[in-house]
Amino acid sequence: MQKKIKKIEKFLLKESKKRGFDSVVFGLSGGIDSAVVGYFCNKIFKERARAFIMPSIFSNPKNTNDAINFAKSIGLYYEVIDIGKFQDDFICVSHLKEDSKDFHRIGNFMARIRMAILYDKSHLYNALVVGTSNKSELMLGYGTLYGDMACAINPIGNIYKSEIFELAKRVGIPKYIINKKPSADLFVGQSDEDDLGYSYETIDKLLVQIDSGLNKKQLFNKGFEREFIESIQTRIKNNRFKSKIPKIAKV
Amino acid sequence: MQKKIKKIEKFLLKESKKRGFDSVVFGLSGGIDSAVVGYFCNKIFKERARAFIMPSIFSNPKNTNDAINFAKSIGLYYEVIDIGKFQDDFICVSHLKEDSKDFHRIGNFMARIRMAILYDKSHLYNALVVGTSNKSELMLGYGTLYGDMACAINPIGNIYKSEIFELAKRVGIPKYIINKKPSADLFVGQSDEDDLGYSYETIDKLLVQIDSGLNKKQLFNKGFEREFIESIQTRIKNNRFKSKIPKIAKV
Repeated sequence: MQKKIKKIEKFLLKESKKRGFDSVVFGLSGGIDSAVVGYFCNKIFKERARAFIMPSIFSNPKNTNDAINFAKSIGLYYEVIDIGKFQDDFICVSHLKEDSKDFHRIGNFMARIRMAILYDKSHLYNALVVGTSNKSELMLGYGTLYGDMACAINPIGNIYKSEIFELAKRVGIPKYIINKKPSADLFVGQSDEDDLGYSYETIDKLLVQIDSGLNKKQLFNKGFEREFIESIQTRIKNNRFKSKIPKIAKV
Repeated sequence: MQKKIKKIEKFLLKESKKRGFDSVVFGLSGGIDSAVVGYFCNKIFKERARAFIMPSIFSNPKNTNDAINFAKSIGLYYEVIDIGKFQDDFICVSHLKEDSKDFHRIGNFMARIRMAILYDKSHLYNALVVGTSNKSELMLGYGTLYGDMACAINPIGNIYKSEIFELAKRVGIPKYIINKKPSADLFVGQSDEDDLGYSYETIDKLLVQIDSGLNKKQLFNKGFEREFIESIQTRIKNNRFKSKIPKIAKV
C-alpha cells in the first residue's frame, strides 16, 4: 500500500506539471473516494487544491457536514455551493413526476451540473479537474457519463473500491467517512451495493478476474456463480459506451 | 459530395443499429451545422429523430426562430426548452460580473446545460445523442468539452466548415440558415471568425495541410504566413486536451 501511496503522489505531480498546471479542483461529497482524493490533493498542491461541496436537494445533509468537517480537519480549502436551484429548474423544464425512475434522471442531471461547475472553477482558478471515480465504478460503468466520470486526471481510477478502504485508513481518513455505506447519494438512504445487487467485496473479486482477461467459462470454473457473473458482465457490456470517445463518420 | 451524402446516411444507420438504437436526439441551434445534422437525422430516423432548441438569455432570438422554421419546413420533431433559468442560477452561484471574459464562462456553462438536457432526453426516449461539431471546430478545439462536443456519434465531424456550406446547399438547407455568419451564439453578434482571427475558408486550407501531417516549415514553404501558422498551431496545441480521455494513475 505504501508503494501505491507514493505512486499516487508522483502521478499528481507529474501529470499536473506535464499539463502546465499547479492547481487542482475537485468535488468533495462526504464519501470515502473524494476524501482520499482530497487528502492527496491537499498534500501535493496545498492551498492550490480547492474542494467544492455541491449538495443537491436529495443529498443527505450528513454527507455535506462530513465533507466540511473533513476539509477543516486537514486544512483543505473548500466552498459549499448549493445546487438545489438547478434541480428545481430541471424538474420544471422536464415536467418530471416523483417516482423512483426519476430519481436517477435527476441524479444524472445533478452530476452533470457538478461537472459544469467544476469545469467553470477550473477555468477561474486555472486548475485541473481531478476525478474521484474508483476502478470498480469505472469497470462497472457505475457513474454518470460527462458527470462525475468527467475529469482531466484521476489518481484512484485504478484502485478497486475494496482497496480504497485500506488506503483511506492508511492516510488517516476519519472513521465518520470510512464507516459509511457506499452511496451515490442520489437520494437519502441510497446504497451502491443495493443498486448493484452485491457487496463491493464480492464484486471486486470477480472484477479482478475479469480484468485479467478471464471469460465466462473460466470465471465459472473459478467458483463464481453463473447468475452473478452474468449480472456483472451485462452491466459492464451495457455501460461500455461510457468509456468511448464520440464516433465520427469517415466521409 | 454525393458520395459524402451516402456515407453520412450509411454511418447513421450502421452506428445506431450497432448500438441497439433506432432513435436519436440532438441540439438544433439555428446554425448551419445542426441544420445539416437535422436534415440527415430526419431523413434516416423520421419521427424517431428529435431536435431540441435550447436558447439561453444570450442567444439571438433570430436563431431560435430559424431553428423552429427549419424544423417545421422539413417536418422534423422539435421542442423548445428555455434554459434561461439555469443561466440566472449560474450567475448567482458564481457571483459573476458582466464583463467579456464572463461571457465565455457563461457560454461554456450553458453548453454543458444543453448537453445535460440532451443526455436526459436520450435516456427518456432511449435515443442516441448525435453530435453537430464539424471538423474545423474539432481540430481547433473550438467548442466546449463535455458540452457541445459531447455525443455518441457525429456524422459531420470529418467535414470542414467550408465544405459544410456546399453540403448544406446540396441537401436543401434554406438560405436564411446558410447565409448567416458562423457564430457560437454565446452572445448576440458573436462571430466565430472574429474569435479565431481568420475566415474558415482561410483556416480550412491550413487545416487540410496540418491534417496531412505537414510541419511548420513545410507549411511555411507552402506559402502560409508564419503568424497565421503559429496562431492556428497554438490553438490546436492548447485545446488538444479536449480530445483526450481522463488520464488514470497506474498504481
